[in-house]
Formats: sequence, structure tokens, C-alpha cells
Amino acid sequence: MKINVVTSVLKANDAVAHENRRRLEAAKILTLNITSAPGSGKTALLESTLPALAPEFASGVIVGDLQTTRDAERVDGVAKAVTQINTEGGCHLSATQVSESLDGLPLDELSLMFIENVGNMVCPSGFDLGEHVRVAMLSVPEGPDKIAKYPTLFRPADIILLSKIDLAEILEFDGRCVRDDLAKINTRAPLIEISTKTGQGMDEWLAWLKGRYAEQYDKKAIT
Amino acid sequence: MKINVVTSVLKANDAVAHENRRRLEAAKILTLNITSAPGSGKTALLESTLPALAPEFASGVIVGDLQTTRDAERVDGVAKAVTQINTEGGCHLSATQVSESLDGLPLDELSLMFIENVGNMVCPSGFDLGEHVRVAMLSVPEGPDKIAKYPTLFRPADIILLSKIDLAEILEFDGRCVRDDLAKINTRAPLIEISTKTGQGMDEWLAWLKGRYAEQYDKKAIT
Repeated sequence: MKINVVTSVLKANDAVAHENRRRLEAAKILTLNITSAPGSGKTALLESTLPALAPEFASGVIVGDLQTTRDAERVDGVAKAVTQINTEGGCHLSATQVSESLDGLPLDELSLMFIENVGNMVCPSGFDLGEHVRVAMLSVPEGPDKIAKYPTLFRPADIILLSKIDLAEILEFDGRCVRDDLAKINTRAPLIEISTKTGQGMDEWLAWLKGRYAEQYDKKAIT
Repeated sequence: MKINVVTSVLKANDAVAHENRRRLEAAKILTLNITSAPGSGKTALLESTLPALAPEFASGVIVGDLQTTRDAERVDGVAKAVTQINTEGGCHLSATQVSESLDGLPLDELSLMFIENVGNMVCPSGFDLGEHVRVAMLSVPEGPDKIAKYPTLFRPADIILLSKIDLAEILEFDGRCVRDDLAKINTRAPLIEISTKTGQGMDEWLAWLKGRYAEQYDKKAIT
């Protein structure tokens, strides 16, 4: 009985996610769903990424949070358009919330949509929002054991960002543990070590993003 | 309909939590439910706290994780007894899981029970496990905005530990933001800045813990 309820919720979500993806593709928007624990640096990533992509790529941002509009305010100056979803206690975004956000965004003017999910390593994993790319972030201070502990976050990821890499030395971070654990669950996704503070890895991340856009909407550009 | 289901799940949980508390009090065990994001340092806190309390206070540990037994292995050498609960994807511990763990622990030999909840700032908040003390941890690298963003975690807390305080200077951490946000939602809980690396704040935390034990089971000791 309980399983039936959960299954039907997920089925309903997937139907809306499918429709979101169709709308986004009609507008030639590549959409990324960014997932991580609280404080891994999702908003800082957007603050660094969006200005580096403009004006070639205009970006929309959908920010999910339990409370406050602080993240939306932080990216307001660098995004073409921002929508904040307050989940009022909910631990993940749903496709329906994203659908309602899309209604208010100027899709014709955008090339990229960044969905900053609620900071949570568990709940967002099961919910397709209509994205093309699932980004999973892990910050160095969280410790190297998180890939093995939260496989549901890192297994479906298309790209993994190891953030705050500038703290690796002072925290004696064991990067090998991360790569060994990742090899067991996801050999498909590249892992990029980044720091929005020093800029390390940003070029690699931006190049990956542009390549992925070209792959989606302009295959000629990468052949 | 949905609300009814949720309410009955919480009611059932609360009844088991009540029974857990009764069993723990019969054995004169003070029980702490430690909640935080992944990687805030819950296990490191136990690794430092338990040896400092022994042999005066013998501690049991119940560790909740989605996967792996790594945390249980880390505290195995310093606790009197350890039980690992693998939630298989569940984002919080329940009173029933704790009840089953208590069955296998030598309650007569323990004075303190530390329950390390699943690393998650959302889901554990609503579930009473039968604890006496709710500990909410926030680590400096997560950023100072988390109190306002996750009030459901910090509002019911009896004590708040601001961990990895040794990183405050290098990360230019705004401690005033934390205290200002906290003052709006919880004026009851003390906030202790700690570092298991440098030992800062550990004396204050241990003194608080012993005082809270005395308050629960030996009122004369603190008058």
C-alpha cells in the first residue's frame, strides 16, 4: 500500500518532468539539476559560472530552499532571470514546482537553466525535474567518505564537482578515497576538482558545459 | 488524506519514542540525538568526546547511515558498545529503529547514549527518537546562512555546536550572522564553538554534558 502511493507520486512527477524537458528543448535550453549537501557551494558555483558564460549563454536560475531568499538574491545580479521556490520544509524540488517556475521565466531569451536543488544528499535523488544534466557536488570539508555513503546521489550524476579543493591540503583530504569509491558506482561521470575561490578547475567545468550544450543542440559544433 | 497518513506515522513514532525514553531512564542513561548536514563532524565529535568522558561515563553509540559501516568502525574503539543502523536510503532514523538497537545494547553498563542521526538537515527534525537532548551541529565550511535556511533543525535544538571553528579565519566566517539568525528562532540553546582538531570548546561541551546528566539523574550534584 505504502509502495503504491510512493510509486504513483513518482510517476506523476516523471510525467511533469517529461513535459518540462519538452518545453525546455523547444526553447533550446540545456538544463542542469545541481544537487549536494547544504553548504557545498552550489550558489558560489553559480556566482562564478554565470558571468563567465555570458553573454554567449544567457542563464536562468531556479533556486530551491526551505526558507529565505538569500540564494536567489546572491545570483540575481549574474543571471538573466531568477525564480525562488520556498519548499516550506520540503527536502527536495519537484517537477511541478519547476513547471510553475518555468511559467514565469523568459524561456525564449535563455540558453541554460540552472536548478539549484535543496541542500540535501538524500531526497532530491529520486525526483527527475526535467533536466538534461544531473550535477552532484561534494565539498572537501565534508570528508572523502561521502561517495560511498550517499551512492543514490552520485550514481545517477552526469558530472561530479569536488568543490573547495583549495582546502584539500590544510584538511589533508584523501582524494584517492573519493576516486576509488566513485569507480565502484559511477564510471561514466567525469570528476572535476574546483575552487570558486582560486578559480581552479573552472575552465574545465565551463568547457564541459559548452561541449554538453553543443552535443544537445548543435552537434556540428563539436565534430 | 495525505496529512492524516503523515500524522499517524508521526503518532506511531512518538509512542515508540516515549517507550524508548522510559527504558533509557530506567537504566539512568542520558540520550543525545545528534543532527547535522553530512560531514559536519558528528563522528569526529564522538571520537573526541567518548574517551574524555570514560571511565566516569560509559557511552553507547547508535549510528545511522544510508550505507556503509564506516562511522560505526570509527567509534568502535572508544565506545562501550556500538550499533549501526543502515537506513537503505531512508533520510532519518526512526524511534522503531532505535528501539531495535536498544535490544542489543548493554543498557545496564551505560550512562550515556549518543545517537548519530543520518547526515541531513531536513528529515531528522520531525522524528523524536526518545532522546533527552537534541544536538544540532553546523560546521564552519557550510557557511553562516544555514541557521536561517534550516530553522526546523535549529529551533528544537537543546544545544548547538559550531564545529570546525579552526577554519573560521581562513574562510572569513561571519559568526555574527549565525548568532543573529539564531537569536530569532532559539534563545534557549547555548551555542558552543568547537574544534576536535585543536580541542577548542571541548571543555565547555564536556562540562555542559556532565551538568545535563546531573540535572537529569542527580539533581543534588548541581545544587
